[in-house]
Amino acid sequence: MAERTESNQPASADRQPARGRPRDAGRDWALLEATVAVLQDSGYGGLTTAAVAKRAGVSTATLYRRWRSKEDLVVGTAVRWASDLGPQPDTGSLEGDLAVLLRDKAGTMEGPGGRLLHVLIGEAAHNEALARVLDTAIIQPVRDRAAAVVRRAVARGDIPPLKDAHVLADLVVGSMVSRLFLTPDAAHSGSTDGPSSGAAAIRELLPFLLRALGAQPG
Amino acid sequence: MAERTESNQPASADRQPARGRPRDAGRDWALLEATVAVLQDSGYGGLTTAAVAKRAGVSTATLYRRWRSKEDLVVGTAVRWASDLGPQPDTGSLEGDLAVLLRDKAGTMEGPGGRLLHVLIGEAAHNEALARVLDTAIIQPVRDRAAAVVRRAVARGDIPPLKDAHVLADLVVGSMVSRLFLTPDAAHSGSTDGPSSGAAAIRELLPFLLRALGAQPG
Repeated sequence: MAERTESNQPASADRQPARGRPRDAGRDWALLEATVAVLQDSGYGGLTTAAVAKRAGVSTATLYRRWRSKEDLVVGTAVRWASDLGPQPDTGSLEGDLAVLLRDKAGTMEGPGGRLLHVLIGEAAHNEALARVLDTAIIQPVRDRAAAVVRRAVARGDIPPLKDAHVLADLVVGSMVSRLFLTPDAAHSGSTDGPSSGAAAIRELLPFLLRALGAQPG
Repeated sequence: MAERTESNQPASADRQPARGRPRDAGRDWALLEATVAVLQDSGYGGLTTAAVAKRAGVSTATLYRRWRSKEDLVVGTAVRWASDLGPQPDTGSLEGDLAVLLRDKAGTMEGPGGRLLHVLIGEAAHNEALARVLDTAIIQPVRDRAAAVVRRAVARGDIPPLKDAHVLADLVVGSMVSRLFLTPDAAHSGSTDGPSSGAAAIRELLPFLLRALGAQPG
């Protein structure tokens, strides 16, 4: 897990403070997949560390050496995935930069990490500490990235300087949550054949976001 | 509960198919408040109909005469609130219509019904039937309303005809979810004193949404 080999893999150890012991990547991976599978079957309320350990083929002692509690396991795993926005490419155009940002976010949300995030959004309704972790893990990285995208576009003269540019992060994260978490099958988009819901959402969202930032869609 | 006396009250019986028995509004109201309170304490996984009935001061038999199950209770209650978008005013301007739409959605999400919605979004990650109910209850009414807002604006000549106008619903619902559910205190907005997070979000979002639709913010 020291390298990022596909878009849905957890952040590498050098980009994200390690939780638990990062030495045995295979076991970490098995625990992640088991966590997602148990959540899918039982929900957060029904998830037990014993069930996750059994599914991952490890002892509960092994699990507890990595994660102190159920909450620690689920939150820590989700944070590693959600924060994995990948490198920040400068594509040279606002449309290109926005497309990469949307694609990265859709990739996270459509993968196993997205399932965790989806569940944790609900848990955060009655767990303030978790709500703060999610803000840090989900929104803040997008806010930082979005700010850089806007800064470069303004510097190129593509768009006028923007008041409240951080709103872009809410539009990016929020519209993806709406499409990928709140709209089953995205059946309304008329594009259920072929590309994923995320790809269809990006194609439709991009012109709106470009206009919102004051640019003319190409 | 036959009339809507404040923005956070459930839909009136004539606008929303009744679930359970709508006759005793006081008891329905007590059950709603109890459901929210127990969810806040225990989460969805820990919520029992017995705990809700006790908190509401009714027997479990009374609860079961209204709601067949825990899921029925929580989902039915949330749907009644989420669908309560209020009347659809034609303010005569795109900005006015959008502001009303955002204000209604923020009102729902910041009230007790919003707490239910927040929890149910997480539950929907592993409950497909619930996911479909939420789509119907949260996204579809906004999609219908947003389509009417766009239609009127195009008819007035305020904006050009829009491809994929349904994206507006994702931007409205999603950005509100991002601000009110994913960003504790909306501390980043610099406006934690005075107006609610929802009011601050609307003020900031409105210019972006107007530009996204092809209008010039006033």
